Amino acid sequence: MEYELAQLTSQIKPLDPAWAARAQERLDSLTKPVGSLGRLEELAAQYVAIREELFPPLELKRVVVFAGDHGVVAEKVSAYPQEVTFQMVHNFLRGGAGINVLALQAGARVEVVDIGVNHDFEPGLNLVHRKVAYGTRNMAQEPAMTREEALRAIWVGVERAQEAVEDGVDVLAAGDMGIGNTTPAAALTTVFTGRPVGAATGRGTGIDSDMHTHKVAVINRALSLNKPTADDPVGALAGVGGLEIAGIAGLILGAAAGRRPLLLDGFIATAGALVAVQLAPAVKDYLIAAHRSVEPGHQIMLDHLGLKPLFNLNMRLGEGTGAALGICLLEAGWRIYREMATFAEAGVAGKKE
Amino acid sequence: MEYELAQLTSQIKPLDPAWAARAQERLDSLTKPVGSLGRLEELAAQYVAIREELFPPLELKRVVVFAGDHGVVAEKVSAYPQEVTFQMVHNFLRGGAGINVLALQAGARVEVVDIGVNHDFEPGLNLVHRKVAYGTRNMAQEPAMTREEALRAIWVGVERAQEAVEDGVDVLAAGDMGIGNTTPAAALTTVFTGRPVGAATGRGTGIDSDMHTHKVAVINRALSLNKPTADDPVGALAGVGGLEIAGIAGLILGAAAGRRPLLLDGFIATAGALVAVQLAPAVKDYLIAAHRSVEPGHQIMLDHLGLKPLFNLNMRLGEGTGAALGICLLEAGWRIYREMATFAEAGVAGKKE
Repeated sequence: MEYELAQLTSQIKPLDPAWAARAQERLDSLTKPVGSLGRLEELAAQYVAIREELFPPLELKRVVVFAGDHGVVAEKVSAYPQEVTFQMVHNFLRGGAGINVLALQAGARVEVVDIGVNHDFEPGLNLVHRKVAYGTRNMAQEPAMTREEALRAIWVGVERAQEAVEDGVDVLAAGDMGIGNTTPAAALTTVFTGRPVGAATGRGTGIDSDMHTHKVAVINRALSLNKPTADDPVGALAGVGGLEIAGIAGLILGAAAGRRPLLLDGFIATAGALVAVQLAPAVKDYLIAAHRSVEPGHQIMLDHLGLKPLFNLNMRLGEGTGAALGICLLEAGWRIYREMATFAEAGVAGKKE
Repeated sequence: MEYELAQLTSQIKPLDPAWAARAQERLDSLTKPVGSLGRLEELAAQYVAIREELFPPLELKRVVVFAGDHGVVAEKVSAYPQEVTFQMVHNFLRGGAGINVLALQAGARVEVVDIGVNHDFEPGLNLVHRKVAYGTRNMAQEPAMTREEALRAIWVGVERAQEAVEDGVDVLAAGDMGIGNTTPAAALTTVFTGRPVGAATGRGTGIDSDMHTHKVAVINRALSLNKPTADDPVGALAGVGGLEIAGIAGLILGAAAGRRPLLLDGFIATAGALVAVQLAPAVKDYLIAAHRSVEPGHQIMLDHLGLKPLFNLNMRLGEGTGAALGICLLEAGWRIYREMATFAEAGVAGKKE
């Protein structure tokens, strides 16, 4: 599977600036001062360059939510019990969660993937069953996954992207569910950015100051034990990552290989991006950082990746909620690009010479 | 008309915090960590408090775009010729402008009001004909308007809000069109915030550094000539304001009196808010600052009003474009509030004790 992954990453190419220039030419002909729609224009130009079409469609949108559990919860790093992961999966499937509401508004379908929940789901649910394991192992005691499991989880994500592209999906967004998953995300932040664990670790769903000190200690222990390094991203995922983070990394790689933009959510989704960009640096051109999360490590990740989030609404829910709002802004840019009249069409005078 | 205005402003009451508390109670029962949807939750609570209903509808949305011309363009303060104002009004009516595209996405109707365009529009257009004058006079030579004209223009805005409320509109947004209107907006910023003209004046639709120095000098001349003061907001509008800015101030007052939220756009709309808040300080509770504009004076205005914009996408188009995007975020907060499942409904465990 290392071979297939290498094959895939070799297909991912940086964007051709000629396409963005062509898009900007049209944007500059529209009835508005040049550049006056700011980042909406940048989103439109990026979309055209990703799709390599002058008027690409933007109809079908899909948020893929990967759910997985974390053995490290045995170290009491989360404020919520582990069963919340599977209970929230049921909530996603019934349409009651934050991501369902915001995806509906964005006109996006939500696909929920069991990539590693510590629970047996009954058949017949509208769930993509791709369980690699019943959660990771406790990374403070042993590697979270085997290398084989990490690769399989990445490949689950790759296949979700490939199937979406086959289904005609234009835009992908990544979401997560997994009690305890800010712990592996913080560990991966330290691995890939070199920043200390204390800076990369936040309060997750809401732990107090003592628990925060404890969480930092647990992560430091996991890093000493597993010795993950940035130059082996799959090994780092296996050591201190998570199954849903691996799935997100794969989704990102598959989206870029299929020339689709991928909207990142917050801290967990961006941990997947750290892995994906390490495996294929050109992936970065296909990413849109939707929002900045409250988690302090998120800005560290975004700075490392050179991504500037579209907004900061003090959100920290995950599930893809920030990414779903980001879809609305990407669509706004695309609509501006496609639907606005040009100066010539509208008979509006241009700037004075 | 001063009497009617005083009557109206006396009806505007600060929000009752008990309503926001009731809304927060529901938000805290939803399947997410408490507060994890940040500003979306604040928007929902503000909306409930404005409407004074536990589950207010949010169906009809209207962006009111006021168009007016500015005599001060004789001083060569704009990069575009004056006829662009009426040409853009035609573009709005044909659906080709930025605001048409973004309002359509937000599910909002665009209402275009000729409050002072220097052009005779043919009858039969889908335009609200409320021309107070064929543009303002050159404020660097004489007052922009008479006090009577300023009051009439404010009242045009009040009536647009009243009619919207009668039509069942739930959410209002303010937009503007008027070549040269960053000049009065900057002048009003200095009047109401006390900050120097140089700090409040930007590049508008795109002027160079020499023109910028000239624009600052023109505004200083207008201020010395007309001597506007913050304690007479109607007089300040008459001296150095604009008809569309007056209309926006009236729309804001009418929205607050009718208990509807008003989404502010950028620099021009917020100039209207400076006037409205000076007339009735409680108006502030009904305002939502959608975005931060590129115009440097906009942040000065927002700081003065104590408003925090929802996003900054480097936009500087006006027309209500930022406000239209803001409607999507208000709706997102409202949908979260109404549509998400509670912990009890979803059978999800809460935080560990």
